[in-house]
Amino acid sequence: MTKYGIVDTTFSRIDMGKYAFETIRREDPDGEILRYTVPGIKDLPVGATKLFERGCEGVITLGWVGKTKLDKYSYLAASIGLIQAQLIAKRHIMDVTVHEDEVEESQLPALAKDRAVKHAVNLVKLVRDGGEALSPMAGRGLRQGYNNAGKILSED
Amino acid sequence: MTKYGIVDTTFSRIDMGKYAFETIRREDPDGEILRYTVPGIKDLPVGATKLFERGCEGVITLGWVGKTKLDKYSYLAASIGLIQAQLIAKRHIMDVTVHEDEVEESQLPALAKDRAVKHAVNLVKLVRDGGEALSPMAGRGLRQGYNNAGKILSED
Amino acid sequence: MTKYGIVDTTFSRIDMGKYAFETIRREDPDGEILRYTVPGIKDLPVGATKLFERGCEGVITLGWVGKTKLDKYSYLAASIGLIQAQLIAKRHIMDVTVHEDEVEESQLPALAKDRAVKHAVNLVKLVRDGGEALSPMAGRGLRQGYNNAGKILSED
Amino acid sequence: MTKYGIVDTTFSRIDMGKYAFETIRREDPDGEILRYTVPGIKDLPVGATKLFERGCEGVITLGWVGKTKLDKYSYLAASIGLIQAQLIAKRHIMDVTVHEDEVEESQLPALAKDRAVKHAVNLVKLVRDGGEALSPMAGRGLRQGYNNAGKILSED
Amino acid sequence: MTKYGIVDTTFSRIDMGKYAFETIRREDPDGEILRYTVPGIKDLPVGATKLFERGCEGVITLGWVGKTKLDKYSYLAASIGLIQAQLIAKRHIMDVTVHEDEVEESQLPALAKDRAVKHAVNLVKLVRDGGEALSPMAGRGLRQGYNNAGKILSED
Repeated sequence: MTKYGIVDTTFSRIDMGKYAFETIRREDPDGEILRYTVPGIKDLPVGATKLFERGCEGVITLGWVGKTKLDKYSYLAASIGLIQAQLIAKRHIMDVTVHEDEVEESQLPALAKDRAVKHAVNLVKLVRDGGEALSPMAGRGLRQGYNNAGKILSED
Repeated sequence: MTKYGIVDTTFSRIDMGKYAFETIRREDPDGEILRYTVPGIKDLPVGATKLFERGCEGVITLGWVGKTKLDKYSYLAASIGLIQAQLIAKRHIMDVTVHEDEVEESQLPALAKDRAVKHAVNLVKLVRDGGEALSPMAGRGLRQGYNNAGKILSED
Repeated sequence: MTKYGIVDTTFSRIDMGKYAFETIRREDPDGEILRYTVPGIKDLPVGATKLFERGCEGVITLGWVGKTKLDKYSYLAASIGLIQAQLIAKRHIMDVTVHEDEVEESQLPALAKDRAVKHAVNLVKLVRDGGEALSPMAGRGLRQGYNNAGKILSED
Repeated sequence: MTKYGIVDTTFSRIDMGKYAFETIRREDPDGEILRYTVPGIKDLPVGATKLFERGCEGVITLGWVGKTKLDKYSYLAASIGLIQAQLIAKRHIMDVTVHEDEVEESQLPALAKDRAVKHAVNLVKLVRDGGEALSPMAGRGLRQGYNNAGKILSED
Repeated sequence: MTKYGIVDTTFSRIDMGKYAFETIRREDPDGEILRYTVPGIKDLPVGATKLFERGCEGVITLGWVGKTKLDKYSYLAASIGLIQAQLIAKRHIMDVTVHEDEVEESQLPALAKDRAVKHAVNLVKLVRDGGEALSPMAGRGLRQGYNNAGKILSED
């Protein structure tokens, strides 16, 4: 039985953890799911690390980033930390991030849900089936939260 | 008995460590609290690390950031370091930061107090009760230092 | 027999992994090649790490970066992480990155192919023959994805 | 007997190491002081690490940063590295930095001296007396190189 | 007998490795010199690490950085990585970097040579004689690639 982790935040204005939970449950009904909530994005790396310690084979983090320049610096620091946490654990973290200013507020719920759901699917695939399971989709321009960009065709 | 750490700075223009101390004392009257003071934000990561070495199960750091571009770079370096310190210790640091230019000076004391208090509450919850204790507040748009942004409603 | 790794993404709009595979196969027909696919660039460092764990002596990663400022921050975080992954494994990662906005879309396929092919050649040289094998080309202004810049001549 | 380290640079246009030396000698006449000089700021982290290896319990680094955007990126990289060096050694580095463009050139000597002296005092306090020794000055708006900003008063 | 390492790139438009080699040979005729070439600046940290593994007591890296914003981000990532490589090995890397846009192209060869030569001299001094050997030059405003900025005089 695979154990998955979800780390979300109280800062987020949308409950993305719920979507991640439902999706993992649907994709792997036999999986065990641990949920852990922290205040903000800079707390996500250690949150994920704690779930790795409890035996999770992969974790999805759900971050929400404000509009200011400083929020973006925090995003950068959190991103570096999330990668570092993965290198220490040698396990995947699907790092879902929604920036409050990337679309109109009215569109944020749909974007956040789509991104959380698609990356929860990715997490199950990577953890249970391995990176080979995604290779048929390599280079397809897949997007989370937006329409897929699609493959650029060449005469090659 | 839980042991908590507070690291603050002489650079800060407001004594946030005092608020953190009072709050932790109130939230966990049986807890032990260690306080450690450093010159500025770039000294916070090793300060927190020293308190972890003395047995603190969680630490709150209270940073104050000036107005210039270079201050913001220092903020970025400190943020990266605080996350790294957490990954090494596998313990939480509640990283409270006040930027001298985020509101008018007259409003800074209230903002700083609110942020220090709320994150001290978060620290106690995370350390004593675990990340599950915050899950009921996930996705609620909670803010420290400002009014809560609140949850974005969707028809979903 | 040398074992090589390829990590590419579903975010990429061009299947660069295919070019890398064909090139490594051609350059070292006896080599073994593992392919692993992840969602986006921030997943590349742990992807490469997983291939190191499976015995790859060198890895090529194929990243695709969007147009926004945030995409560039993600690029920075991924770059830092890819270097860190190399320092931990003490093995090379040829870090191929295509930025969606560096040329017109119609030119991206040729650029991406050229860059993937040339860096796959570099990977085989570095892994099989060592960095000494590249020394005759040092200081020649070689470019991947563009025409070579060439050496700057001096009267020296 | 406490052993202190000083790392300065040949890039600096002011001999801040001299001020640091005199100050540590005055503050702790029994202390041993090691001095180590490197070319520029990006060499400071490993320089400090070498002094930790020789038994220094704390180190002061004295960096000088030029005016260009690239100098500021180097400052950022050096700051991240200095924090990392502290986390590895679990010992303090007082990171003194003077930016060539922060004041008029005529004012740089006074600024550099003041900053080096005050942080050398901080180093002795932190190393010999611990972070508790600075707690009475927490939140006082202390500055090095400038007049103190002072505490922001509130009716609280 | 001291063993020195040189890591240069095929991306560079000037063969700085040659200058570094000649200089180290001249400064320490008995020293052994290993040369290793990589494609670009982001490959330098692991290249230096490989030379440390082969017994080099110090390494000089010779990086060339393009003109775009992304090149500068790559510079930042490489700088962070080079510092990290030094902290892991506890040995010096003299990090020589030439930015293609820092002077007119016609002036680049002289600048690159001067910088490579001076830092190769620094490397030999630091590795063979230690950081104390540079202390007489501390605070002198020494520059590599430009005229020395010189010491700022004060009445102090």
